[in-house]
Amino acid sequence: MTEETVIGVQNSGATTELTSDFISAINLALDQNDTADAKSLAQSLHYADLADLLENLAHVQRKELVEALRSDFDPNVLAELDETVRERVVDQLGISQVAEAIAEMETDDALEVVEELDADEKKVVLEALPVDERAFIEEGLSYPEDSAGRLMQREVVAVPMHWKVGDAIDYMRDTVDLPIDFFDIFLVDPTHSPVGTVPISRVMRSQRDIPLSDVMRKHIKIVPVDMDQEEVAFLFRQRDLISAPVVDDSDRLVGVITVDDIVDVIDEEHEEDIMRLGGVGEEDDLYSAVIDTMKSRFTWLLIHLFAAMIAAYVISFFADTIEEMVALAILMPIVAAMGGTASVQTLTVAVRAIAMKELTMSNAYRTIGKEVVVGILNGVIFAVIIGAFAWGWFGNPALGGVIGLAIVINLIVAGFAGSALPILLQRMGFDPAVASSAFLTSITDVVGFYVFLGLSASLLL
Amino acid sequence: MTEETVIGVQNSGATTELTSDFISAINLALDQNDTADAKSLAQSLHYADLADLLENLAHVQRKELVEALRSDFDPNVLAELDETVRERVVDQLGISQVAEAIAEMETDDALEVVEELDADEKKVVLEALPVDERAFIEEGLSYPEDSAGRLMQREVVAVPMHWKVGDAIDYMRDTVDLPIDFFDIFLVDPTHSPVGTVPISRVMRSQRDIPLSDVMRKHIKIVPVDMDQEEVAFLFRQRDLISAPVVDDSDRLVGVITVDDIVDVIDEEHEEDIMRLGGVGEEDDLYSAVIDTMKSRFTWLLIHLFAAMIAAYVISFFADTIEEMVALAILMPIVAAMGGTASVQTLTVAVRAIAMKELTMSNAYRTIGKEVVVGILNGVIFAVIIGAFAWGWFGNPALGGVIGLAIVINLIVAGFAGSALPILLQRMGFDPAVASSAFLTSITDVVGFYVFLGLSASLLL
Repeated sequence: MTEETVIGVQNSGATTELTSDFISAINLALDQNDTADAKSLAQSLHYADLADLLENLAHVQRKELVEALRSDFDPNVLAELDETVRERVVDQLGISQVAEAIAEMETDDALEVVEELDADEKKVVLEALPVDERAFIEEGLSYPEDSAGRLMQREVVAVPMHWKVGDAIDYMRDTVDLPIDFFDIFLVDPTHSPVGTVPISRVMRSQRDIPLSDVMRKHIKIVPVDMDQEEVAFLFRQRDLISAPVVDDSDRLVGVITVDDIVDVIDEEHEEDIMRLGGVGEEDDLYSAVIDTMKSRFTWLLIHLFAAMIAAYVISFFADTIEEMVALAILMPIVAAMGGTASVQTLTVAVRAIAMKELTMSNAYRTIGKEVVVGILNGVIFAVIIGAFAWGWFGNPALGGVIGLAIVINLIVAGFAGSALPILLQRMGFDPAVASSAFLTSITDVVGFYVFLGLSASLLL
Repeated sequence: MTEETVIGVQNSGATTELTSDFISAINLALDQNDTADAKSLAQSLHYADLADLLENLAHVQRKELVEALRSDFDPNVLAELDETVRERVVDQLGISQVAEAIAEMETDDALEVVEELDADEKKVVLEALPVDERAFIEEGLSYPEDSAGRLMQREVVAVPMHWKVGDAIDYMRDTVDLPIDFFDIFLVDPTHSPVGTVPISRVMRSQRDIPLSDVMRKHIKIVPVDMDQEEVAFLFRQRDLISAPVVDDSDRLVGVITVDDIVDVIDEEHEEDIMRLGGVGEEDDLYSAVIDTMKSRFTWLLIHLFAAMIAAYVISFFADTIEEMVALAILMPIVAAMGGTASVQTLTVAVRAIAMKELTMSNAYRTIGKEVVVGILNGVIFAVIIGAFAWGWFGNPALGGVIGLAIVINLIVAGFAGSALPILLQRMGFDPAVASSAFLTSITDVVGFYVFLGLSASLLL
């Protein structure tokens, strides 16, 4: 949770929406060097919209607008920005102003901004923070990247397990240092270990003399501080949680994770999957500089190039065959395309199912078996279609038979490899999405060309 | 929100975890026809875990377990199940038992289950429901699929805008018919139109005589009942919302959407994107029957087949050229692979950016321009690498030059088409992900083959 609400209430009655027209108006003002106008327009936005606006502007315009806003730059905008854009804005504002902004954020937002800074910048920022907040951030940084410890907010409402509803209400009314908004109160035992959660709507509805333990949720999900964020997201998703307590090695309550941070994690994990499946680096987004995008694409293009070279090498075995029967060169891409498509289909379903924890060791063999059967069925159908097509085109029934056989074999291989490879990678502790189209299409290309050209060489000539 | 918590508290102290060992134990019990054991094991699970277990089991085992659990089947399990599996379980339990289960659910969960039923089944279920719940469900069904109206829960806490904190607390203590858990109270004006939101943590912390309007959030996001769920998810994500009021055409508050439902929407939308990019139907998942999976894959394979046939047709123009210089047939797949990879990379980034509302009309040209520049840069680098490789392999510098030129052109086309096509589709009101690899690789295949073979024909021979 950010301080959105308090700032919203105190600060402005901002209700402007970030429409296309609005963006045009800002661009116009910036192009005409009317910075005062651009500034007042930008300040009429909610900080989340302002962040979106900064992301949407071209570099030059963004720079001008940040400069115009510098004197009263809302710290919350920083937390909402995409990483690539944030890096640029941080550089522009200068580290000492950024340090001041970070000091005003809640710990989870502050940590998110600080963890992306360079070592030098981190040092400057940490030194500028109040001592207790600095300790929180430093502790946060000590947890592994992408762990619960990095996600959690340190401000927690925890009360002794023997308290009554009335005690909790009095405590909340009298304590000034509570989080801005919160959803659950955690009951802790004398060792500060969480034993139950009480949604505050239940506190609200209960009489003052009822023990909190009578209205608490008993089977709560407790998150260890070093749990991977993907696991944490799974818990939230599966149990429809709004917040969850985080504990350290000795089971002491050290923080709370709220669902709004989990929504970001889910988006992040989705992005990872989709980017890896598409053969793109995660850091490659709309806001990356041309040179960074080029580099990120380059690596995967190179991997695909190696895969294609292997396929070319396989074809070169059959140069004489192709010279004798050029129809083979014409039909080759069809065999490769069918195998490649089928393998990517299977891979996509498998990677998605692994990410959603639907595909586990207990149904792995069943899944691979199903994909092979689907490969056989579609293989036979497409063998008939493509075989008839080749026969008709080149008037050669044997050629139709050979390409049909190649299609069946290739679709079976695609179903097997497309499901087995991600499962295997997952078991070996890798991200299953790195199996990626490069490796799979390489397999189906090689198998397809080898079977099609090999059978042609021995059966047709 | 489901009734999880109340059931959890009253019903059991279930704390068993769904581990691999647990699944093995259940499978063993079912294989040995020890249904009593299987039943008691299954009942020790939280209902969300039980749903996961049912999804994970093979058909036969699942049927046995559902049969064993029939007499006390937890309605919440039904709401948590994957659609494909739920359909089977519903068929097995029989519609009259399902109707009873649905009557026990909250409206949003009930609607989710009912909307997937056949027309006949719907009728039976609706007739079995208490009259007011039936009216809610029927109204819910009247909203468009995937709209806010389908997502919302009808049980809302709404109070007059002039109330004080103490009034709200008394109201909540005295009203039995409130939602199980809730996070925000909505302030409404005399026409029942929402004017503000008060997070209940703020009610809790404020003195009884403070007006609610002093502690409310002013710029709230109000969701029209016919807003698309993707738009709703964007609002939640952008503003870190926990719940949002839903209004009808005349701005009257009719329901509330909570973030746990939005998490499901985000997963669903992501699934749509990743499946479309992978050329797989959305209904194609791990639990689909072989025949359904086969059908879903078939369509896309057929589309790819047409694309590949067009490519084959282009190659056939140059049959004589290939006969004279078989190296062309060997190198062809490399040109196609590079173009295909680059276009899928660009497509992936563009589709993701459109889904996250980062790529809009205001930066569309800039994005396409950037992708073309990236295509030129990587095109030149790979032209040199691949040109040198072809020259070295076949000892023909002109062949190296021709393939290099084909690579540059193909990567530029890939960058342009990979970004422009999804933007165009989006503008025309289609899902940009249907641009899909089929169309793009078809474009890059045709361009690649045509340029490479055409240049070869005119320059090399």
